[in-house]
Amino acid sequence: MPQLRQNPATKEWVILATERAKRPEEFRTTEDIEPAMSKTDCPFCAGSEAQTPGELFAFRTYGTKPDSPGWRLRVVPNKYPALMPLGNINRLENEGFFRFMDGVGSHEVVIEGADHDKSMANMPQEQVEEIFLAYRERYVSLKKDPRYEMILIFKNHGREAGTSIRHPHSQIIASPITPNHIRHYIEEGMRYFDDNGKCVYCMSLEKEQTNGRIVLETENFMAYVPFAARSPFEIWVVPKKHQSSYEQISDIDTKELGYVMRQILAKLYRGLKNPAYNYIILSAPCHELDLEYFHWHIEIIPRVAQVAGFEMGSGIYINTVIPEEASKFLKEIKID
Amino acid sequence: MPQLRQNPATKEWVILATERAKRPEEFRTTEDIEPAMSKTDCPFCAGSEAQTPGELFAFRTYGTKPDSPGWRLRVVPNKYPALMPLGNINRLENEGFFRFMDGVGSHEVVIEGADHDKSMANMPQEQVEEIFLAYRERYVSLKKDPRYEMILIFKNHGREAGTSIRHPHSQIIASPITPNHIRHYIEEGMRYFDDNGKCVYCMSLEKEQTNGRIVLETENFMAYVPFAARSPFEIWVVPKKHQSSYEQISDIDTKELGYVMRQILAKLYRGLKNPAYNYIILSAPCHELDLEYFHWHIEIIPRVAQVAGFEMGSGIYINTVIPEEASKFLKEIKID
Repeated sequence: MPQLRQNPATKEWVILATERAKRPEEFRTTEDIEPAMSKTDCPFCAGSEAQTPGELFAFRTYGTKPDSPGWRLRVVPNKYPALMPLGNINRLENEGFFRFMDGVGSHEVVIEGADHDKSMANMPQEQVEEIFLAYRERYVSLKKDPRYEMILIFKNHGREAGTSIRHPHSQIIASPITPNHIRHYIEEGMRYFDDNGKCVYCMSLEKEQTNGRIVLETENFMAYVPFAARSPFEIWVVPKKHQSSYEQISDIDTKELGYVMRQILAKLYRGLKNPAYNYIILSAPCHELDLEYFHWHIEIIPRVAQVAGFEMGSGIYINTVIPEEASKFLKEIKID
Repeated sequence: MPQLRQNPATKEWVILATERAKRPEEFRTTEDIEPAMSKTDCPFCAGSEAQTPGELFAFRTYGTKPDSPGWRLRVVPNKYPALMPLGNINRLENEGFFRFMDGVGSHEVVIEGADHDKSMANMPQEQVEEIFLAYRERYVSLKKDPRYEMILIFKNHGREAGTSIRHPHSQIIASPITPNHIRHYIEEGMRYFDDNGKCVYCMSLEKEQTNGRIVLETENFMAYVPFAARSPFEIWVVPKKHQSSYEQISDIDTKELGYVMRQILAKLYRGLKNPAYNYIILSAPCHELDLEYFHWHIEIIPRVAQVAGFEMGSGIYINTVIPEEASKFLKEIKID
């Protein structure tokens, strides 16, 4: 018998489709999901610095110059940006009905390391830690621009997840509008807070303790398959400290988060043979500070199931792996 | 310079990414998008009726028996249903926090014709008309079950759109909950109505008259690329009569809709070389009758662009084809 489950934080319902249930092993990737691109063509490899716009930020060996080798991590503007730091933020109207505005914003690429073939799942630990520190540095820097309302940090790994470049990288987009999707999280968090006097994410951390969906827990972070996971092996990584924005993470916590993320991504890599995935770091709109009712977190979505007409039309996801089983499967995979 | 546009009906923003702009021709499919399945293995072909659960509805030659050849269209329960007409609709709670319920519902397959290799784009006109009549018959029938709140009619065409069976078919799911996604349409429609005293979809039909985004117009329907199309070649087909639910469509209008849909799908087929696509028929929740502020319509989404982390995390879609150009491209493709 199928079951419907509701995410307490977003109020989205999902269908656990027992009649279509699959074993976790059936989701193993069978082909190379990474885009084919040799090191010689790669604009993100060391030595090809001139192929990207000038760097905005880097971790590099003392004494080396910007836009030259010697870096461990580089942040550069996207060469084909979705939004650009030009124009103005006035909303305009066409025929008094159609609203539009300049595509003002920022679109950055975080080149996560010089090694073309490594991904976070098999990079050295310290390197992953630096990625999460760089994210915070860029968040804080972008936030200074008063035109930006939302800063989204995300990663597309593998062709199915929307990337065309194999070299490990993630992206940061700052947008001049707060979209409905983010407002929805905020509004639901607010409603829960007004009803219960507590953050619904803090409450989730408490309630998740006893049900077998936790994959990994450290002093300051919890990684679990949510009760109403939208797709097989969806994982949320949530800080135990209540913070509404990624800019609030401390230096030391970026290290711990790097550890947790590397462990989780390595479990996916080993358990499902390098699946494509996306992750997103959700924060409150960037000028809304220290909200009691929103809690930043990371959503990791392996792209192992196809989104089809029903999901697009209803927003109800059909998940063919019971979250408790997905969690058990991932928990049992040992990582050094 | 990129532009941000907002859909007046849903208030969703999209990015028109001019820096990544592509010509319509670049979206032509280069490989066979249809799942490989021979007629002998196909459970939907004439002669294989025993491979599906017993038919719920059919158009068949006078005198032929249910679940035997002689049909032009069959509706059968999905053999691997996402929801099943069992259990009860009580919401239950786990630890006073996690809400869930039985997966009560219905999941039907509309087998659109006996010919394994035809799709709506190249079927005879009368056959397409019957599909849209069958949808209404099933909608009306499913609605009689008081447990169902939402009835979604949809089609997945091609592997990328989530189908594994080549034989032309669409699906109908009745769900015991109204999801946020549908509520959001309703709420925004309500807000517009309260502000302006008009249905925002009726207003869209009026405003779309002058801007060059209409692809096809008949006496009772308009097909256009929306001002804020989320992806290249997204098309909305909207009835000119204000009706909030698909159950209200008249017999004669199902024929006209069949004409419009066949024309549009044939334009996609010719112009983009048989792309994968989804379409969904959105109606108000099925027990909310004759709403002034919602207007049923069809959204057609060709799956020619990858949804990646940014779209998943922000709900903002990045579209690389200007809607006016997509519309012009489709308008110029002549169909018999």
